[in-house]
Amino acid sequence: MKNTKFPQSGRARAVIERVSPEIDGGSFPIKRTTGEEVVVEADVFTDGHDKLSCRLLHRPAGADKWSEIAMAHQGNDCWQASFNVSGLGRHEYTVVAWVDRFLTWRHDISRREDEADILAALKVGIVLVEAAAQRAKGAKAETAALALKNWAAELSAATTPQARQLMAQSESLAELMAAHAERLFVTEYRRVLEVTVEIERARFSTWYEIFPRSCLTEGATHGSFAGVIEQLPYIAAMGFDVLYLPPIHPIGRGFRKGPNNSLKAGPNDHGSPWAIGAAEGGHREIHAELGSAEDFRRLVTEARSAGLEVAMDIAYQCSPDHPYVAQHPEWFRHRPDGSIQYAENPPKKYQDIYPFDYESDDWQALWAELKGVVDHWIGEGVRIFRVDNPHTKPFPFWGWLISAVQAEHPDTIFLAEAFTRPKIMHRLAKLGFTQSYTYFTWRNTKEELTEYFTELAQHDSREYFRPNLWPNTPDILPEFLQYGGRAGFMLRVALAATLGANYGIYGPAYELMEHEAIKPGSEEYLNSEKYQLRKRDLSQPDSLESYITRLNQIRRDNPALQSDWNLRFHPIDNPLMLCYSKTDGEETLVMVANLDPHNTQAGWIELPLEELGVLPEASFQAHDLLSGARFLWQGERNFVRLDPQASPLHILRLRRRVRSERDFDYFL
Amino acid sequence: MKNTKFPQSGRARAVIERVSPEIDGGSFPIKRTTGEEVVVEADVFTDGHDKLSCRLLHRPAGADKWSEIAMAHQGNDCWQASFNVSGLGRHEYTVVAWVDRFLTWRHDISRREDEADILAALKVGIVLVEAAAQRAKGAKAETAALALKNWAAELSAATTPQARQLMAQSESLAELMAAHAERLFVTEYRRVLEVTVEIERARFSTWYEIFPRSCLTEGATHGSFAGVIEQLPYIAAMGFDVLYLPPIHPIGRGFRKGPNNSLKAGPNDHGSPWAIGAAEGGHREIHAELGSAEDFRRLVTEARSAGLEVAMDIAYQCSPDHPYVAQHPEWFRHRPDGSIQYAENPPKKYQDIYPFDYESDDWQALWAELKGVVDHWIGEGVRIFRVDNPHTKPFPFWGWLISAVQAEHPDTIFLAEAFTRPKIMHRLAKLGFTQSYTYFTWRNTKEELTEYFTELAQHDSREYFRPNLWPNTPDILPEFLQYGGRAGFMLRVALAATLGANYGIYGPAYELMEHEAIKPGSEEYLNSEKYQLRKRDLSQPDSLESYITRLNQIRRDNPALQSDWNLRFHPIDNPLMLCYSKTDGEETLVMVANLDPHNTQAGWIELPLEELGVLPEASFQAHDLLSGARFLWQGERNFVRLDPQASPLHILRLRRRVRSERDFDYFL
Repeated sequence: MKNTKFPQSGRARAVIERVSPEIDGGSFPIKRTTGEEVVVEADVFTDGHDKLSCRLLHRPAGADKWSEIAMAHQGNDCWQASFNVSGLGRHEYTVVAWVDRFLTWRHDISRREDEADILAALKVGIVLVEAAAQRAKGAKAETAALALKNWAAELSAATTPQARQLMAQSESLAELMAAHAERLFVTEYRRVLEVTVEIERARFSTWYEIFPRSCLTEGATHGSFAGVIEQLPYIAAMGFDVLYLPPIHPIGRGFRKGPNNSLKAGPNDHGSPWAIGAAEGGHREIHAELGSAEDFRRLVTEARSAGLEVAMDIAYQCSPDHPYVAQHPEWFRHRPDGSIQYAENPPKKYQDIYPFDYESDDWQALWAELKGVVDHWIGEGVRIFRVDNPHTKPFPFWGWLISAVQAEHPDTIFLAEAFTRPKIMHRLAKLGFTQSYTYFTWRNTKEELTEYFTELAQHDSREYFRPNLWPNTPDILPEFLQYGGRAGFMLRVALAATLGANYGIYGPAYELMEHEAIKPGSEEYLNSEKYQLRKRDLSQPDSLESYITRLNQIRRDNPALQSDWNLRFHPIDNPLMLCYSKTDGEETLVMVANLDPHNTQAGWIELPLEELGVLPEASFQAHDLLSGARFLWQGERNFVRLDPQASPLHILRLRRRVRSERDFDYFL
Repeated sequence: MKNTKFPQSGRARAVIERVSPEIDGGSFPIKRTTGEEVVVEADVFTDGHDKLSCRLLHRPAGADKWSEIAMAHQGNDCWQASFNVSGLGRHEYTVVAWVDRFLTWRHDISRREDEADILAALKVGIVLVEAAAQRAKGAKAETAALALKNWAAELSAATTPQARQLMAQSESLAELMAAHAERLFVTEYRRVLEVTVEIERARFSTWYEIFPRSCLTEGATHGSFAGVIEQLPYIAAMGFDVLYLPPIHPIGRGFRKGPNNSLKAGPNDHGSPWAIGAAEGGHREIHAELGSAEDFRRLVTEARSAGLEVAMDIAYQCSPDHPYVAQHPEWFRHRPDGSIQYAENPPKKYQDIYPFDYESDDWQALWAELKGVVDHWIGEGVRIFRVDNPHTKPFPFWGWLISAVQAEHPDTIFLAEAFTRPKIMHRLAKLGFTQSYTYFTWRNTKEELTEYFTELAQHDSREYFRPNLWPNTPDILPEFLQYGGRAGFMLRVALAATLGANYGIYGPAYELMEHEAIKPGSEEYLNSEKYQLRKRDLSQPDSLESYITRLNQIRRDNPALQSDWNLRFHPIDNPLMLCYSKTDGEETLVMVANLDPHNTQAGWIELPLEELGVLPEASFQAHDLLSGARFLWQGERNFVRLDPQASPLHILRLRRRVRSERDFDYFL
C-alpha cells in the first residue's frame, strides 16, 4: 500500500486557522509598548458536534513555561482572548485547542431526556471526573483532587437522575475540570508568533528637532552643546520629550557644499552635517566646534533631567574624508579607474557622499562596524535613533541591526526617515523600526487626511507601522506652510498633535514660522540650516511657542491623545472642515478643524453619541481645551464655526452629565 | 560582541512579499484543471534605485528542474507572470528575484548626459557583458557567447559616446543578458507553493443523482443496475455527464427504518442505503438486489460510453450488522455497559448507525481500511466520489485520504456533502475536496444570490472552493420548490446551470417536479426514496426533461458557462429580477432571471457594454439561447420582461457587429 504515511497528529481533531494578529504568515513580530493589550483571535473548530477547549499561550521569548488563558467563543467559530505585555523585549504567543471530552459530555448530558439515558451518561462522566482527580497531583492540587473526588461521589449519589444531571452542569465542577483537563490529541497552531514590547515613548512621543550648530551661547560664532543646554528650558517648557539632533560628527571638507547647497563652499562655510567624517574622525567622533564627548554626555544628562531624551541621527554614509575611506576601501564601490564611486542619481552627482557597498565581500565586518556605531552612542547614553534614509540600505541589514541592538537594549527606539513608496516603508516597519515618518507632511485635504489616517489607525498594518507625523523637516517646507500664513502653521501642528500619538517639528523654524523656500515650486528652505548656521530670536512676539505649549499640555493631560488606534472620523457638512474623535476609556475628545487657513468656516458635525458614551437626549458640554470656550450641545448634530486666525482647531472634551435623572444635573 | 549572528543571505537585497495565490501562508494547494492558467503576483522591491530581475518558477512536484518565466512590473512594486498547468497532480511554484547589475547599469547609462560620464559608465557595462559571454557556455550557448562578445566589442568601438549609449539600451542585448544573467545574491520567496491540477470535470460537470433501487426493469419489483442501464439514454440525452448513485451496499437489518423514516420497518421494507453493512458484507460489497459486481462494472462501462461517469457515494458509517462491528470492535466507541455507541444528537438517537471512533488506538488501521474502500471502487472503475457528511469525520483524515488517493489516481474527484458552517466547508475544500455542496440550495432572493455568488466567484476562496450547486437533494426539498410550481422548478435549475459551472439535480424527482414534503415546515420529501422504492412515469407530459436538455446543451456549447470566476452581476431596476453575465474570450452571455415564480416581471437592465466588448453606439442583437428569441438592443439600458410560465430566464448571447463602419453591418 503506497502513500499511507500517516500524519503524526492524526487524532488531533481541532483545527486552528487565521490566528491574528499575524504579519505575513508570522514572519514578523507585532508591536506593543509596556502594559498594552494583545487581543488574539483565531478560527477554531472541529468535526461533528464535540466541544472544544481553546487556550491562548504567551511567554517572554526564551522562557520555558507558557502562561495560559482560556479563549472564549465569539460565534461563527471565532475565539478570542487577550493578554497584557509587561517586560520589554520579545514575547511569544500561540494558540492550542483540543476536543474536550468533559465539555462534550457536559453539553450532551444537558440535552438528555429519559432517566435511563441520563444514568448511562452519568457513568461516563464519573469516569472523566475520577480521572481528573487522579491528574490533580502535587501539593498545590491536593484540594482540587479532593473536590473532584467529592464531585464523582455526589454525581453517583444524588436522589434523582435529574438532580445529578443538573449537578453535571455546575460551573465550579467545570472550572475544576478545566484546571485539570485531559489534554488528549492537542492541536498546536502552525507557528509561534511574536510581539516586540517597547518603552512607552515608542507609542507616545513629542519630538523637537534642532541644529546644535545654531544654538549659540552669548558671544559665540558657532553653536554648541552648551548652547543646546541653554535652550533646554525653552524646549522642555513647550512640552517636548524627544530632542532630535542632526548628525554631530566631523564634517567632510572634500566637495563640501556651501550655503543653499551651492557646489563650492567658501573657507568659512560649515557644510552639511550629513557629509560625515573628516581627518578628525567619523561616526563615533564629535564635530569639535559643538563640544567634547564630555559636553555631549552633559547634554544627554541635562536633557533627561528636563524630561527630554536625546535622539541621535544615524546616517550611514561617508564624506570623502571619512577615515573609513582610507582604512576600509573594500567597504565602498569602485569605478573602473579605481576611484571610489560617489553617490549618483544620474545625471545628478553627489560627490561629497560615498555610500557603503553592502555587497562587499567584507560585508560582515561592515555590518559589525555599523552596529558598533550604535553601540558606541548607547554607551554615551543615547537610546533613541532617527535613521536617515534607511530605504537606501539593504533590508536584511536593518532587520539584523535592530534585532541585535534591541536584544541587548530593549529600551532603544529607531525612527525610520523613509519618505518613499508604501511597501518599502511598511517593510522597514516590519523589520523592526519603532516609528516611521509618514505622508502626513503632504496630506492636506479632508479626503486625503481621512483616507490616510483611517488606514494608519484601522488597517492591519497598525500592528507594526507606528506613524510619527512631521509638519516640516529640514528637508521639507511643504507648500501649505509656504503660503498658509500663521493659521497654516497652527493648523498643521495641531493636526499632527491630535491625529497622531507621535509627532515632531523641526524648530525653531516651525514656531517662528519660517516659510521662505529657496525658489518657487521647491520644498527646500531658503538659507537652510543644512548648509549654514541660523541665528534666531526665540522671543519673537508672533511665535507659536505658547500655542504649541498648550497643544502638548493637552496631549499630556489626555490619554486619548496618546495612542493611534482610537481615531475615528465623523461627518461634517463642509468640505473644508474635518471632524474626528479619540476615546480612551470614559474620556472622549472631539477635534474639529478648519482646513482653510484663509477663511472662517462653519458646519454641522454629526456625532455617534451613544458610541461616545454620551446620552443623546440630554444636553452636554463641549469644552474646548485649546481656547477654554464651553459650548452647550444637544443631540447628534451640532454647529461649529472656526476662525483660523484665532485657532483652526477645537479640541473638545465632551463633559457628560453624571445623573441625568435629576433636575439639577451637574457636569463632570 | 553578542548578537552578531549574521543572516546567511545578508547580501540578498531583493524583498519578496505577498506572493499570491497563497492559501493560509502556503499551508494548502490552490486548485486548477488541466490547461488552466495560474496568474502569480508578488510584491518585489529592493533598497535604493537599483533594478531587479524577478522570475516565476514552476514545475511538477518532484521534478528536479524549475521552468522559469520573467515577471513583469505592474507598478506599485507589484510583479506578475502566469503559467499554464498541464499534467494532473501536484505542481509547485515560487518566486525568486535579485538586484540585476546589468539592468541597473542600463537604466543608469540612459540618464547620463556628459560624454566623460558616458564613457566611464560604458567601461563598467563592457565588463558586465564580457562576464556574461564567459557564463554562456556549452553547445547551446555558443551563439549567445559569440553575440555577447560582439556586443562588448561594439560598445567600445562605436563612433560617439552617444551612439554607444543608445547601443547599451538595445533590447536584443538585454535579452541576451537576461538569458545569461549574473544571479548574485538571489532572494527566494519564503516557501514553495502548490497547485493541485485535476481533470476538466472538476471544473465543469453536470450531475444527475438517481436511486438504482427505483430503476425497475420490465416486470421487476426492485430496481437494479440493469434498470439504471436502461435509463442511461434518457439521462445522457438530457446532457448530464456524472451519474451519482447513493450507496449500493448491503443494507443493515438492525433498527432498519421504514417508509418516511418510521422507526419500525416492516418485513418487506427496504431501509436506507446509508445504513451500510449486513451479514452479506460492507463497504466493498453490493446490495444483492441491485446486481452483481459484474453488473456494476457493466454499468460503469455503459455509462462511460454514454458520456457519463459513475459517482460513488462514500458514507463512512456502519449499520449494527456491518461485518466491521464484529471484526473490529476497537474501531467503535463503547458505552460503559460495553455496548457499541450508536449515533446520537441528544435527545435524538440513531440506533441504526454506528459511527467510527477516529480516536481509537487502532486509528491507523482504520484509516488504511477506509482508504482501501476507495481503492476498491477505483479498481472497479469509479473515479468520482461524493462523500457523505465529511464534516462529522476528522479533518486530518480527509487531508490524508484525498492526498494519498490522488497521488496514485490524480484523475479522481471528491465532492464534499457538507451543508454546515462556512469555515468548516472551507477547511474541507482546502484539505483537497475537489468540489463542495453550497448554500445555493437556500439562496433565493436577489440580495442573497448576488452576495453569495460574488463571494464564490470573486473572493480569494475561489482558489480552493469549487461550488457544486444543487437545487434539490434526497435530503432537501426546499420551500421554494414546494410552493413555486413549475416556474419555480424551471427557475432553480436554470439558475444552478448558469450561475455555476458545476451543478446537479436529484432526479427524476426534479424533472417530474415532485414537491410534496412529509409535513409543513419540513424539507423532507414525502415517501422519500431514502426509505422506499419509487415507481415513476418518466414520460409525464409536463416533465422538465426538454427544458433541462436545452439548458445543458447551452452549457456544452458555451465555454462561458464552463467556469465560475467569470461571473459578474449587473443592475436591474426590479428587486424580483436578477441580471448577470459570463464572458469567455470574445463570447458574452447575459442572463436575466425573474425570481418571482408567480408573476411576470419586467425591468431595465444596465450593461457595461465596453467591458463586454460591445460597441455602445451601435445597436446589437441579444439572442435568447433558451427560447430562440432575438432582441435588437441599443445602448447600456435595455428593457426585459419575463413570463415565468414560459421561462423565468433569458440566456442572451450578445451578437456584436463585426464591421461597425459599414452601413450594411452584419451580425456574427
